[in-house]
Amino acid sequence: MATLTRTLIRDTLAQTGKKVRLKGWINRKRDHGQVVFLDLRDRSGIVQLVGGKELKPLRLQDVVEVWGIVQRRPENLVNPHLATGTIEIAVEKIDRLAAAASLPFDLGQEELKLELPTLFNFRPLTLRHPRVKAIFKVQEVLVQAFRRKLKELDFTEVQVPTLVPSATEGGAEVFPVTYYEHQVYLAQSPQLYKQILVSIFERVFTVAHAYRAEPSVTTRHLSEYVSLDCEMGFIDDWTDLLAVAEELIRALLKAVEENCTDELELYRVQLPRLGQKIPRLSFPQALEILSQRRGIDKSKALDLEPEDERELCRWSWEEKGSDFVFITHYPKAKRPFYTYLDPQNPELTLSFDLLGRGFEWITGGQRIHQYQELKKRIEEAGNKLEDFSLYLQAFKYGMPPEGGFALGLERATQGILQLSNIREASLFPRDMERVDIHLPSRKSN
Amino acid sequence: MATLTRTLIRDTLAQTGKKVRLKGWINRKRDHGQVVFLDLRDRSGIVQLVGGKELKPLRLQDVVEVWGIVQRRPENLVNPHLATGTIEIAVEKIDRLAAAASLPFDLGQEELKLELPTLFNFRPLTLRHPRVKAIFKVQEVLVQAFRRKLKELDFTEVQVPTLVPSATEGGAEVFPVTYYEHQVYLAQSPQLYKQILVSIFERVFTVAHAYRAEPSVTTRHLSEYVSLDCEMGFIDDWTDLLAVAEELIRALLKAVEENCTDELELYRVQLPRLGQKIPRLSFPQALEILSQRRGIDKSKALDLEPEDERELCRWSWEEKGSDFVFITHYPKAKRPFYTYLDPQNPELTLSFDLLGRGFEWITGGQRIHQYQELKKRIEEAGNKLEDFSLYLQAFKYGMPPEGGFALGLERATQGILQLSNIREASLFPRDMERVDIHLPSRKSN
Repeated sequence: MATLTRTLIRDTLAQTGKKVRLKGWINRKRDHGQVVFLDLRDRSGIVQLVGGKELKPLRLQDVVEVWGIVQRRPENLVNPHLATGTIEIAVEKIDRLAAAASLPFDLGQEELKLELPTLFNFRPLTLRHPRVKAIFKVQEVLVQAFRRKLKELDFTEVQVPTLVPSATEGGAEVFPVTYYEHQVYLAQSPQLYKQILVSIFERVFTVAHAYRAEPSVTTRHLSEYVSLDCEMGFIDDWTDLLAVAEELIRALLKAVEENCTDELELYRVQLPRLGQKIPRLSFPQALEILSQRRGIDKSKALDLEPEDERELCRWSWEEKGSDFVFITHYPKAKRPFYTYLDPQNPELTLSFDLLGRGFEWITGGQRIHQYQELKKRIEEAGNKLEDFSLYLQAFKYGMPPEGGFALGLERATQGILQLSNIREASLFPRDMERVDIHLPSRKSN
Repeated sequence: MATLTRTLIRDTLAQTGKKVRLKGWINRKRDHGQVVFLDLRDRSGIVQLVGGKELKPLRLQDVVEVWGIVQRRPENLVNPHLATGTIEIAVEKIDRLAAAASLPFDLGQEELKLELPTLFNFRPLTLRHPRVKAIFKVQEVLVQAFRRKLKELDFTEVQVPTLVPSATEGGAEVFPVTYYEHQVYLAQSPQLYKQILVSIFERVFTVAHAYRAEPSVTTRHLSEYVSLDCEMGFIDDWTDLLAVAEELIRALLKAVEENCTDELELYRVQLPRLGQKIPRLSFPQALEILSQRRGIDKSKALDLEPEDERELCRWSWEEKGSDFVFITHYPKAKRPFYTYLDPQNPELTLSFDLLGRGFEWITGGQRIHQYQELKKRIEEAGNKLEDFSLYLQAFKYGMPPEGGFALGLERATQGILQLSNIREASLFPRDMERVDIHLPSRKSN
C-alpha cells in the first residue's frame, strides 16, 4: 500500500469516494466505544478519521500513517468550523510512526490558556496548537511582503554581519562575545552596515538579527529579535522615507489581509486601519496635542512615554481615521549620533517613528552623509573615531544624501494580532531570564 | 530643474535626444583639455558624460547630480563593452552632492588587483568596483532562488534564534556570549531548531547566521556565515532528501544562469555542469575509487580529505559528465549525534554531502526521530540530556521520520564564481584575525 502517494489533508475534499494515504499527528480523540473518532493534523489542515477498535491504542500527538476511504459525513455531523468538515476518512489501516508521551496539559482546547512560562517551557508542544502556530504564518507573510515590496522598489537584499568590533550604539545594552583571544560584540542593529552599503547599491534591505541587552523585562522587548531594515540613497529630501515607509506598511497589511484570513479570525482581530494617508505630526505638534488631551504640560518633554504613544494613536483614529501616525522631528538629544539635524531647528532631527495601536512599529530618518559633520557628531556623542573607521570610509569617499528605517518583525506581528506580550511573537523568545530554558539566577547561589 | 524626475542610467538609452537628470558617482575621468569625459555610475549601470571645463574640478567617487541631453555617440566612439556604449550625456549642469577624498588605489582597473588585506581594509571602497559588487548580485540571486524553490515545495520559512543555552555541537569551536549574569553561546547552526520545527510545520527553511570558532585560517571557512537550511518530515526514506537537494541545486544554478549573465562574464566562468542526474557514491564506493585513482590505500579512511574531494569531483566529471557528486553513508564516527544510522551497517549513517568543483556545497541526512534512541545517542556522544531538554521534547511528543540539509551561502557563491578565497564572497568577512578591522594580536602585548 506504500505505493499510494501521500495526500495532504487540504486535498482530501477533492478525493471523495477514493482511497487515500495520509500522514500526520493525532490532534484529538473521541472514543464512543464501538466507534472511535480521531482528528488527524498535518501541515495543511485537520480531518476526522473514523474507525473501530484499531484506533483505540492511539494517543494524542502520536505520529501516524493512515490508509482509508474519503466519505461524505451524514448531514447532521457536518462540522462548519472545519475546512474538511463535510467529509471524514473511514480508516482501513493505520500505522504508528512515532509514539507520543502523555501530554502535560490539554492541547485540544480552542484557546490555549497557559501561563507564559509554561507556554515557553513546553515550546515544541505549544507551537503545535493551531492558534499559536497561526502567529508564525502571519510572521512569514510579513517577511515575504517586506522583501517583495522592496524588490519591487529596486532595493538589493544584503547579508550583513552580527559580530561587530565595538559597542557602537550605546555601550550599556550590548552583549560581549569572547572571540578567540579578543572581545567583540553582538550588533544592536544592522544600521552601520546598511548605511555603508548605500554607497555600493544605493538601495538595500536586510532581514537581520539584532541584540539588545535590555536590563529589564517588559512586554515589548526581546534580547534577540528580527529587524527588517532598509536604507536608500539619493533621496530628494527626508519625506521620501516617509513615503516608502507608508507604501511598505500598506503592502504588509494587504499581504496579511489576503493570506491570513483564518489567522485573523482565530484571534478575532481586525487589521489596523490606515485611512487615506497616514497623518504626520512633528514632535512639537505632538506635545501640544498631548498637553491638551492629557491635561498636563508636555511642552518640555524630550521623548514620548508609552502613554503618550497610546494617546497619539487615539488622537489619530479619532481625528484622522487612521490607527497609525507618523511622529517626526524628534529632539536631537534622544536620537543616535548619525541622525540628520533639522536645518530649521538644529535641536530637532529629520527623524520619525511610525506609531500604530499605541506603540512604535517603525523608526527611521535621514542620516548625516557629510564626512566632516559625521566625524564631529561621533566625537560629540562621546565615541572614538577609530571605532568607526570602516563606517567612516563610506562617507570619506562620497556618500549621497540618504536615510532609512527599521521595522521590528515581532513588534509588527504583535501589533497585528494584538498579542499582549511580544514573546508570543517569537518562536523561541530570549529575554533576561530565558534562553530556551529559564536561566538559573546566579545571585541566589 | 529639480522637478525633472531622476532617470536611472539603464533607462537612458530609451531617452535619446531628451533631457535627463541623473545621479551617481564619478567612476572614471579622462581629461582631454577642451573636452572632459566622466563615467557616471549608479545602481543600474554606467554611462559616459561629456562636457567642458565645468567637469574639471570633479574627482573620482564624487557624488553628483547631472542634467544633460542624451545623444548618440559618433560611430567610431561606440563602446561595445558598455550597455550604454552607443550614447553619452552632454552635460548642461552638474552639482556635487558629496566630495570624495583621494583614492588610496586605482579603482578604475578592469580587475581590482589588490592583496586580500587591502581588499577588506578598504571594504566600503573596494565593494564599489563592478567586479567585486557582482559577487553579491550572484549571492542575492542564490538566496532568492533558495526561498522560491522551497516555497514552491510547500516549506514554511521560519526565524530561529542564534543565542543558544549550551555548546551543543562540539564545545571547542563555539563563541561564548556574556548574557546578563549568564553565559550563553552563538549557534553553530540552526540545526536543533529546524528539527524541532518539523514537528510543527513539517517542512521548514531558514536563512540563518551560523558561527564557527575555527581555530585556523583557511580559504574555505568564515567565523560568521550565512547558512541556507531546510528540514522536512514524513520522508518515505532518506533518498527523498537527495531528490530535494538535487532539485534545489538545479533551481539555484538556473536562477544564476537566467539573472547573472554579466556577472558570470566578468569572472569568465561557466556554471558547473549537472549532467542528467547527479551521480551518487556511497562512502565505501568513494574510498574504492580514491584508492584506485590516487594509488593509495584509502579503505580505512573515516573521512574525506580536501584532495579526496577534488579527486571525486574529477571522477564525476570524467565518468558521469557531472561537476557534482553525492557522497552518501559517511561513517558514524564523523557525523553528529543526531544522524540516523544505516540499518544495513550501523557503522555508517544515512547522511550525504554534495561535492562540487572540489568541495562540499551541501551537507545533510536523515535524523534520528525516535525519542529513546536519540537520548541514547546524545549520551554516547558525551553530552548531558539536560542540555537538550527543549530539543528532546519535540521527539518525546511525536516526531515523524525526517531529515534535511544545509548549504553555505558564501561557499556556493565561491563555487559558482570560482573565487580563490571564501572571504571574497562575504560583504564583511569575519575570521580569526578580522572583524571589519584587523584585530590586534594580544599575544604580543
